[in-house]
Amino acid sequence: MTEKQGSKDNVVLIGKKPSMAYVMAVVTQFGTGQTSIEIKARGKAISKAVDVAEIVRNKFVKDAKIKDILVGTEQMETEKKERFGVSTIKITLAK
Amino acid sequence: MTEKQGSKDNVVLIGKKPSMAYVMAVVTQFGTGQTSIEIKARGKAISKAVDVAEIVRNKFVKDAKIKDILVGTEQMETEKKERFGVSTIKITLAK
Repeated sequence: MTEKQGSKDNVVLIGKKPSMAYVMAVVTQFGTGQTSIEIKARGKAISKAVDVAEIVRNKFVKDAKIKDILVGTEQMETEKKERFGVSTIKITLAK
Repeated sequence: MTEKQGSKDNVVLIGKKPSMAYVMAVVTQFGTGQTSIEIKARGKAISKAVDVAEIVRNKFVKDAKIKDILVGTEQMETEKKERFGVSTIKITLAK
């Protein structure tokens, strides 16, 4: 659903890979000239999104700052049509 | 170390209990007249901190808003004196 946004140049969607895979994706995007990158995650991946933002700005792109952090809830549905909410986060890192 | 802060009236430190235990702690503190509550977490508990904030403001205290979100890195040390960083989050909910 939101997977598509992962293909946008300034969005990194956090999934099941190790944190360093996403750190490298963010660093690479800054390297191609992006000045603002959105790190997005849902559910348990939210902790990893914070790790990624922190590692990028502390170790790799030291002039990057956390510009904004938004949290929210996305409504999901099981196959049995039971609705439930999943927390989301969007961290904007900018130089 | 920061466990002590859990005893402050307007701080809820997220640990290993189910989310609803912390939701109730926040709702109770708003009920005693607090107008601003800090939800703090480290490491993998960060996702749960976002869940708690979202559940409180969507289901229990509908006039509460997310006033601020801060993330950071805390330096830790193993028994072998190896240093490592742990991500932290502080979500301020306020009425």
